[in-house]
Amino acid sequence: MNKLKEECGVFGIYAPDRCEVAATTYYGLFALQHRGQSSCGIVVNDDGLFRTHKDSGLVNDVFTPEVLDSIENGNMALGHCRYGTSGSKGRENAQPVVVDHIKGRMAIAHNGSLVNSYELRTELELKGSIFHTQSDIEVMSYIIIEERLRQPSIEQAVNAAMHRVKGAYSLVVMSPSKMIACRDENGFRPLCYGIRDDGAYIVASESCALGAVGAKFVRDLKPGEILVFNKNGVESITDHCGKACPKLCVFEYVYFARPDSVIDGCCVHDARVRAGRYLAQEHPVDADVVVGVPDSGLDAALGYSRESGIPYAPGLLKNRYIGRTFISPGQKSRENLVRLKLSPIASVIAGKRVVLVDDSIVRGTTCGQIVNLLRAAGAKEVHMRISSPPFKFPCYYGTDVSSKDKLIANRYSQDEIAMVIGVDSLGYLSIENAMKLSGETKEYCNACFTGEYPTATPTENRTGRFDQKLSEKR
Amino acid sequence: MNKLKEECGVFGIYAPDRCEVAATTYYGLFALQHRGQSSCGIVVNDDGLFRTHKDSGLVNDVFTPEVLDSIENGNMALGHCRYGTSGSKGRENAQPVVVDHIKGRMAIAHNGSLVNSYELRTELELKGSIFHTQSDIEVMSYIIIEERLRQPSIEQAVNAAMHRVKGAYSLVVMSPSKMIACRDENGFRPLCYGIRDDGAYIVASESCALGAVGAKFVRDLKPGEILVFNKNGVESITDHCGKACPKLCVFEYVYFARPDSVIDGCCVHDARVRAGRYLAQEHPVDADVVVGVPDSGLDAALGYSRESGIPYAPGLLKNRYIGRTFISPGQKSRENLVRLKLSPIASVIAGKRVVLVDDSIVRGTTCGQIVNLLRAAGAKEVHMRISSPPFKFPCYYGTDVSSKDKLIANRYSQDEIAMVIGVDSLGYLSIENAMKLSGETKEYCNACFTGEYPTATPTENRTGRFDQKLSEKR
Amino acid sequence: MNKLKEECGVFGIYAPDRCEVAATTYYGLFALQHRGQSSCGIVVNDDGLFRTHKDSGLVNDVFTPEVLDSIENGNMALGHCRYGTSGSKGRENAQPVVVDHIKGRMAIAHNGSLVNSYELRTELELKGSIFHTQSDIEVMSYIIIEERLRQPSIEQAVNAAMHRVKGAYSLVVMSPSKMIACRDENGFRPLCYGIRDDGAYIVASESCALGAVGAKFVRDLKPGEILVFNKNGVESITDHCGKACPKLCVFEYVYFARPDSVIDGCCVHDARVRAGRYLAQEHPVDADVVVGVPDSGLDAALGYSRESGIPYAPGLLKNRYIGRTFISPGQKSRENLVRLKLSPIASVIAGKRVVLVDDSIVRGTTCGQIVNLLRAAGAKEVHMRISSPPFKFPCYYGTDVSSKDKLIANRYSQDEIAMVIGVDSLGYLSIENAMKLSGETKEYCNACFTGEYPTATPTENRTGRFDQKLSEKR
Amino acid sequence: MNKLKEECGVFGIYAPDRCEVAATTYYGLFALQHRGQSSCGIVVNDDGLFRTHKDSGLVNDVFTPEVLDSIENGNMALGHCRYGTSGSKGRENAQPVVVDHIKGRMAIAHNGSLVNSYELRTELELKGSIFHTQSDIEVMSYIIIEERLRQPSIEQAVNAAMHRVKGAYSLVVMSPSKMIACRDENGFRPLCYGIRDDGAYIVASESCALGAVGAKFVRDLKPGEILVFNKNGVESITDHCGKACPKLCVFEYVYFARPDSVIDGCCVHDARVRAGRYLAQEHPVDADVVVGVPDSGLDAALGYSRESGIPYAPGLLKNRYIGRTFISPGQKSRENLVRLKLSPIASVIAGKRVVLVDDSIVRGTTCGQIVNLLRAAGAKEVHMRISSPPFKFPCYYGTDVSSKDKLIANRYSQDEIAMVIGVDSLGYLSIENAMKLSGETKEYCNACFTGEYPTATPTENRTGRFDQKLSEKR
Repeated sequence: MNKLKEECGVFGIYAPDRCEVAATTYYGLFALQHRGQSSCGIVVNDDGLFRTHKDSGLVNDVFTPEVLDSIENGNMALGHCRYGTSGSKGRENAQPVVVDHIKGRMAIAHNGSLVNSYELRTELELKGSIFHTQSDIEVMSYIIIEERLRQPSIEQAVNAAMHRVKGAYSLVVMSPSKMIACRDENGFRPLCYGIRDDGAYIVASESCALGAVGAKFVRDLKPGEILVFNKNGVESITDHCGKACPKLCVFEYVYFARPDSVIDGCCVHDARVRAGRYLAQEHPVDADVVVGVPDSGLDAALGYSRESGIPYAPGLLKNRYIGRTFISPGQKSRENLVRLKLSPIASVIAGKRVVLVDDSIVRGTTCGQIVNLLRAAGAKEVHMRISSPPFKFPCYYGTDVSSKDKLIANRYSQDEIAMVIGVDSLGYLSIENAMKLSGETKEYCNACFTGEYPTATPTENRTGRFDQKLSEKR
Repeated sequence: MNKLKEECGVFGIYAPDRCEVAATTYYGLFALQHRGQSSCGIVVNDDGLFRTHKDSGLVNDVFTPEVLDSIENGNMALGHCRYGTSGSKGRENAQPVVVDHIKGRMAIAHNGSLVNSYELRTELELKGSIFHTQSDIEVMSYIIIEERLRQPSIEQAVNAAMHRVKGAYSLVVMSPSKMIACRDENGFRPLCYGIRDDGAYIVASESCALGAVGAKFVRDLKPGEILVFNKNGVESITDHCGKACPKLCVFEYVYFARPDSVIDGCCVHDARVRAGRYLAQEHPVDADVVVGVPDSGLDAALGYSRESGIPYAPGLLKNRYIGRTFISPGQKSRENLVRLKLSPIASVIAGKRVVLVDDSIVRGTTCGQIVNLLRAAGAKEVHMRISSPPFKFPCYYGTDVSSKDKLIANRYSQDEIAMVIGVDSLGYLSIENAMKLSGETKEYCNACFTGEYPTATPTENRTGRFDQKLSEKR
Repeated sequence: MNKLKEECGVFGIYAPDRCEVAATTYYGLFALQHRGQSSCGIVVNDDGLFRTHKDSGLVNDVFTPEVLDSIENGNMALGHCRYGTSGSKGRENAQPVVVDHIKGRMAIAHNGSLVNSYELRTELELKGSIFHTQSDIEVMSYIIIEERLRQPSIEQAVNAAMHRVKGAYSLVVMSPSKMIACRDENGFRPLCYGIRDDGAYIVASESCALGAVGAKFVRDLKPGEILVFNKNGVESITDHCGKACPKLCVFEYVYFARPDSVIDGCCVHDARVRAGRYLAQEHPVDADVVVGVPDSGLDAALGYSRESGIPYAPGLLKNRYIGRTFISPGQKSRENLVRLKLSPIASVIAGKRVVLVDDSIVRGTTCGQIVNLLRAAGAKEVHMRISSPPFKFPCYYGTDVSSKDKLIANRYSQDEIAMVIGVDSLGYLSIENAMKLSGETKEYCNACFTGEYPTATPTENRTGRFDQKLSEKR
Repeated sequence: MNKLKEECGVFGIYAPDRCEVAATTYYGLFALQHRGQSSCGIVVNDDGLFRTHKDSGLVNDVFTPEVLDSIENGNMALGHCRYGTSGSKGRENAQPVVVDHIKGRMAIAHNGSLVNSYELRTELELKGSIFHTQSDIEVMSYIIIEERLRQPSIEQAVNAAMHRVKGAYSLVVMSPSKMIACRDENGFRPLCYGIRDDGAYIVASESCALGAVGAKFVRDLKPGEILVFNKNGVESITDHCGKACPKLCVFEYVYFARPDSVIDGCCVHDARVRAGRYLAQEHPVDADVVVGVPDSGLDAALGYSRESGIPYAPGLLKNRYIGRTFISPGQKSRENLVRLKLSPIASVIAGKRVVLVDDSIVRGTTCGQIVNLLRAAGAKEVHMRISSPPFKFPCYYGTDVSSKDKLIANRYSQDEIAMVIGVDSLGYLSIENAMKLSGETKEYCNACFTGEYPTATPTENRTGRFDQKLSEKR
C-alpha cells in the first residue's frame, strides 16, 4: 500500500551459444516486474543483428508468444521494465534504447537517475545534438558514444563516460559482440550477476531474477565496477571502485526489492523481519494482535510479533484481482477503492488492541483509510508502527516521490500525524536502526530521512525546463 | 495452488429507489471474483426494462466504465461470475440468463449443479423444447416458466420448481418487479443477504460481497428457504425448509470462500486456522518452521504454528503478477511455471526442517514441484500437512473435479503419495475434524472424501450425452 | 449512399468428403458481406459434431486465421452475415443459431422477416416456451422442432413448418447429416445453389458467392421449393411451389444485390443499366454530363448516358477509407461527413449541366448535401434522376426502413422534394418500368411503392410489444 | 491493383487563433490516406506546448475521439501518413518526429527520399551523433538543427539545410511559433497551400486535402520554395527556386494522387482520361467494350472509350470489404485473393472483345490473374492497354519499387510480357505522351522509364549498410 515508485529493473544475458535468450529475458523481467509496471522491452542480439520489441504494459501482456517468436533466439539479450510518471506516456520512453553510431549499434538500459543530466544535455545541444525524449538514458547514450569516438573499445567508452555522468545508475550496455554492466560509484541501486549451467552469464537488478531463469548467483557488482562479458568470459574494470562511499538506497530493503532477493549480502525478507524486531524494541505496546498491511508490511509485522510475543494474524486481506487497471466507477469511488482492495477479517480484529505495521507513510491518506477500516471492524485500539524513519526529503536517485510539500512527515510532527491518521500511538523506526537492517551498522543512502545527499543535487533548472512552455527566441 | 474450481458467485440488489445498481453489482462481483473467473454478467432492471451485458473475462475487464454507463441505473440488478470448463467457451454460457415468457421477462443466475438435469431436459424436449446451451440454468428457466403458467406468482413458480429440480443450487431470479433468492434443501452452496443504509437489499454468495458494497449482513438463507424482495420488503417462504439434512460443502471453508466471509455462522479464516490446529494435534512433528503454500494454505499454516509452537514464516513467495493469462514460452515451460509463480526465501528454508501446509492434493503434480523447490533451497526435511481429508470421489454439486482416475488419493495410499511427492512425512486432516471446522461437530457434505452422496447422483447418460457425436436417426 | 438496409446473407456447403468447409464458407460470406455488416457466424458440422463461432463485426475481422483453425474442417457448414438495427446489439442476435432438441442438434440461418411471428410466439409461450432473443429465427426454430416431433424427417418438419410461418424467408437448416434449403412461397429474397468440381453443393443468397468459392451456378430455388442435400445428392420438395405469386423484392435489383449476381435469370448490373435507360426515356433533359452517386448509382448513370448520349463521367469520388466505424470528431461533423465521403471532381462539374443519378431517396438529407457539393463545385444545373419509384410504404419482408413518417416521398410531392433537395428537376422511375427491370414485365414485390402487400401484414402488437416496458401482472 | 507504393502525405495548419487544429488535421490526413496506410501521426502545437500521437494503422483507427481529445486544440498542427516497407514496423518510424534542441522544440514531417542520406549520416556520426531509426527524417532533423546553431531563425536554418540535403522532399517543419513548408529544387513531390475563411493557412501534399477541411486552394509551392507561416501571414523564400529543372514525378498523375486533386495546374482525373485518349491513338484495336481495372485504371479506360468510341463498362467489380488486413486462409489463397477482390460481370464480358486498361504493370502476376478472370468469364479477346510507359528502373525519390530484377519490363520484351500475362495484344503509353499528360509537353521525372536520374543517385553502401549484420571492430 505504498505510494513510492521505483524507476526500473534491468536484465541481461550473454550466452556462449545461440539459444532462447528472448524467453530467458522474458522470465527474468517477469521476476523483476515489481520494479516497474509501466512499460517493458527486450532487445535480442543475434550475432550482431538487433531485434527489439517494447511497449507500455506488463511483461506478460507486452510479450505474447507471437512477439517472443518474432524477436527469436540469439546470443545476447537486454531487457528492462520501467515505472513512468503519469506525464510521460510509457511507450516512447520504454527501454532498452537502441542507437546507431559510427562504430555500429548499441543497446542500453538502466535503473537510476542522473543528477547532472540537465548540464550534460545543454552541453550536447550546444554541439547540435537533438533529443527525442526527456530521459536520462538518451543523455547517457550520447556521452558513451562521444567517448566511443576517442576510446579503443565500448567498455573503455563506458569507463570514460562514468567520469562525466553523476548520480545513480545501474547500467547494462550491449554492443554487437559484448555485454557491459556497471554500477555507479555509490552503488545506489542494486546490480548482480550469475551463471547458468550452460555457461550463460546473467546480469540483473535483483537476485530473484537469477533464480527465475535457473542461474546461480555469483555476486553483486561493487559500487563503481564495470563488468565486461564476451567470448573470453567475464572481466572486471575497477577504476571507479572505492572512489565514493557505498550508499545503497535503504528503501530497497524496506520496500522496493522482492523479499527473496539478497542485496549486498543481506536477504530482503530478513532485513524486514529485523526492522519489525527493532520497532518492537523501540516502540513496545500492550496489545492483542499484530497485523501487517499487505504485502509490504507483512514481514515487519512478523518481526514485531516475534520480538514482542504478541500473536501475528493476517487481519487485512488483499483482493488478488485488483490490477493496475482497476477502475472504480460511481460516486464514492475513492473510499470504495481501499475497501475493495483490503478487507479486515472481523474475527481477528473485533474487540482487539491492534498493532498495525506498514513500511512507510508518504501522504497519509491511504493509511488513514486503513485505520478507519480496522475501527469499523471493531478494533479497540490501533497502534501504528512504521518500519522506516519519517520520509521528509525528495529523492534524486530514482525514486519517484511526491513533491516535498506533499510528504506528510515534512509538514507535521509525529503527534500530529498520529492525530491525522487517527491512531492511538505511532512509532517510526529510528535512523540508527535503519542503518542496521542487515544486522550490522552500514552506510546506506538516507537522504530522504536526513536531507544529506551523497552527491551534488540537480540544479533548479532541471525539472523546470520541461514543464514550462518552450519558446523559440526568434 | 489448488486445482479445484468452484462454479459461480451470484449477487443481487433490490433498491427501493432508482440508484447506481450496476456499479453496486460490479463491486459485489469484484468481491466474489475468486468464485469464478471465466465469464461474468450483469442485468439491470430499470422499472421493468432489462439491460444486460455479459462476456468472458474478469469483472474488471468486462465491465469498463463505458459498459457500466451503457447499462445505467435502475432499481434492481442481478450479477454473476462463473468458472467454465475448457470445453465450454465462456461467452455463450455466461450468466445471468434473460428469457422472455408469456408473463413477461425473467433474469436468472445460480451457483451449483443439478443432479437430474438430464431427466428434466429429456422431459422438456419431448414436449418440443429447444436448448441453446448445455447449462443447468436453461433447464431451470424452463421448469420455473412451466410452473409460472400454473402458479399465481413468480415466487410460487420458484417454490413449485424446487419440487422438480434436484441437486445444489443457490439461485437468484429477477422478474420485472421482484427479486427472488433461494437455496436448495441441503444448502450445499452458501447464500446470504444484507441491507444497506438506503434500504436496499443485497443477496450474495458470500458475506464478503456485502461488506464490499457497504451493506450490513442480516443472515444466511436457510437450506430450502425462498426470500422474496419487493416493494413491501422481504418475505420468507419456508415450505422446503427442514426437508433435508443441511449439507454445506466443507470445501467452502477449506478452499473456495474468502477468509473474511462468514458462512453459516463461522468465519472462514477461523475455520482454516482451526484446521491447522487440528492438523498439529493429529500429525505433530519435530521441525523448525511452518510454511504455508500461498494463498490458500497460509491460514492453516498459522494454525499449525500456533498449536505446535513451531515458528511460522512466509517461506514461499507468490509472484503477484501471475495472472490467468500467463503464458509460458520456451521448452521447459511447465517446470518454469511453478518456479515463476512461487519463490522460496532461502534464508527461511535453508538447513531447516520444514512443515509445509496446503489445503488439498488433487493430482499431486504441483505439490511435488513445490517440494522440489524447497529441497533446492536447502530444506533438510519437508513434512507435508493437508488441511482437508483425502479427496477421493467426484463432486456433483458444483465443484469441477478431475475425473476420479486423476485424483491421486484415489489411486495411491498415503504412504505412496508421500513417496510420489517426495516428502519425509504426510498428514491429512481426519474426516472427524473436518466436520468440526466451525468449532463444533456439524453436518457438512463430505461426499468427496467418503463417496456418500446426500442426494441421488446423475445418471450415466448425463455427461455422456454431450460428449458423443450426435446423430439424427433419419 | 443509400440508407436502406438488407437484413442478411446466407451460405451453406454440403461436401461429400471432409474438407475445408470453414474456409469455403468464409469466402462465401465475404462475397455476401454487402448484405449485412453487423455480425456474422459459421457453424461447421464435422460428422455430427457442431463447432460454432459468431460475433459482431465484419467477416474479415470476426474470422481470423486462428478462429477458422479452431472450427476446423468438416463435411458441412452454414454461414450467415447480418445487418442489425441499432437497438439490438449484434452479438446476441448473430446467426446461425444452433439448438438441441429431442432428436439431436440443428443449425439454422435465414434472410427475411416473418409477418406472423408475434402470433406464433404467443402460441409457443402459452405452452411454456422461453425465448432468449426477439428474433424470428428463434420462433422458426421452435416451429420446426415442434413439427419434428410429428414428422419422420427434418425435411418434412421444414415442409410442415412452412404451412405455419408466413412472410419472407430464405432459409438454410443443417442437421447432423443433411442440409436443407428453402425459399418462401413468394420468393421475396433470393436463394440459389451451385456445385463445385469436387462434388460439393453450395447454397447462397446470391450467385456472386458461388463464383467466389469456385462453384458453378446451377439454378435459383423456386419460390416455395425445399432442397435436401444429403449423401444421395440433392432432392427437391415442391409441395409449396406455385401456391403464391412470385414476388421477388425489386430492390434486390435496384440496390441490395451485387452487380455481378444473377437473380431469377437477370444480371443485376444489366437491370441497373436498364433502369438508367428507362429513366432517360421517361425523364429526358438537356445536359452536359451524367454523374452517378457511388457506388449504387453508377450503373444506372451509365444506362442514362448510353440512352441519352450525354457523356458519362465519374464526377463524384468516393473515399475508399470510409469504413463503417468512421468517426467524425468536432463540431461540424454531419456536414463534414458527406464532404469526406464524396469529393466532386471540379473539372468534370464546373460550368456543367449535370444529370445526377442515384438509386433511391429515403430521407432526403444526404441527397441534399450531395447536391450542395455539386453546386459548390460549380455545377450550372443539377437534374436528379432516381432509378426506382418513390419509396412510400414500410417493408415487412426484411428491409429496414425508417418509419413511414421519415420517408420523404410519403410527406412531400415530387415538386416539393425537388425543392427540398435543391435540384433543377427530379425524375423517378415509373412503377411500370420498375416491373420491367429484367427486360420483360414481371411480378415483383412493389409494396414499398404501392402499399399493396402480397401477404397479411404484422399485427399492431408486434413491434409494440418489445418496445414497451414489460410488467408482470402479479 | 498497382503494387507501387507512395511514401507519404503531409499536412499542416497554422491558425491565427487557437482552434480545433487536431480535428482539422485528422480530416486532412483522412483525405491523404491513399498516400500511406502504414502509420500516421499528429503533433498539436498549443502556444509552444507540443502534444503528439502517432501509431501504426489507418488514420481512422489511430485517431479515436478519445485520442483527438487528448491532443486537444491549439494554434498549429502537423500531420503525416506513411507507407512503410515490411521490414520497418510502422510505429517506430511514424512521423511527424518531434525533437528537442538548444533553441527549443521542433516537429518535422516529409514526403520523399534523400539520395545523400548515407553521406550525411556518416558525417554526423563522425561527430558523435546517434540515430534511433534508419529514416531520412532523422538525418534531416540533425542537419536543420546543426544549421540552426549558425542561423538567426528556423526558416534560415531550413534554407541552409537545403544546400546540404539532396533528393526529393516536400517538407513541413513546426517550431513553437512558426510553420515552415518547403519543396525540393526539382519539385519531385507535390505540395500546395490554401487558406480557410477564418484565416488559417493549410499546407498539404495534395489539393484534395484542402477541400476536405473547407480551405480554398491558393497555389502549389514552386520547386525550391520555402514558405514561412507566422503571425504576420505568409512569406516566401525563393533562394533555391530555379536552381534545377522542375521534375514532378509523372506517377503522381498516373497512379498516386487522388483524381480530384489538381497538381501543378493539372487535374489528376483529366490527366488520366487524357492518358486513355493517347493510348487509344497509339494502340487502337477493334473491340466491343473497354474495361478498367478498379480503381486506378477506370479514368484511363473512360478516356480510351471516348477516343475510340468503343463502349465503356464496369466489367470488373471490386469488393468494397477487402481491407489492408484481409487474410486469406486455406490452400489456394493467392489465387483466391484476386478472385475475391475482383469479380467480372459476366454479361459485360462474355463473348466480347475486351480492351482492359490498367495504370502500370510492375511484376505482372496480378495482371495475369485478372486476364484469367476475364477469360473464365467468357472474354473472346483481351487487349491490354497500360496508361504509362514500361517501368524499368528503380526510383530513388520516394516510390517503393521492387528491386530492378523483379520489374517485368526490365526482364522481358513487350511481346514476351503479352505472352506471360496472356493477352491478345499489349500497348503501353509512349514516353512522349506521358510528358503531355497535362495537355502540353512538360518536364516530368521519368527516370523509372528511362534510367535518366535528375540528381546523383545513392551510393552503393547506402542500402547495403542496414541490411548486413553490424559488427564492432573491437
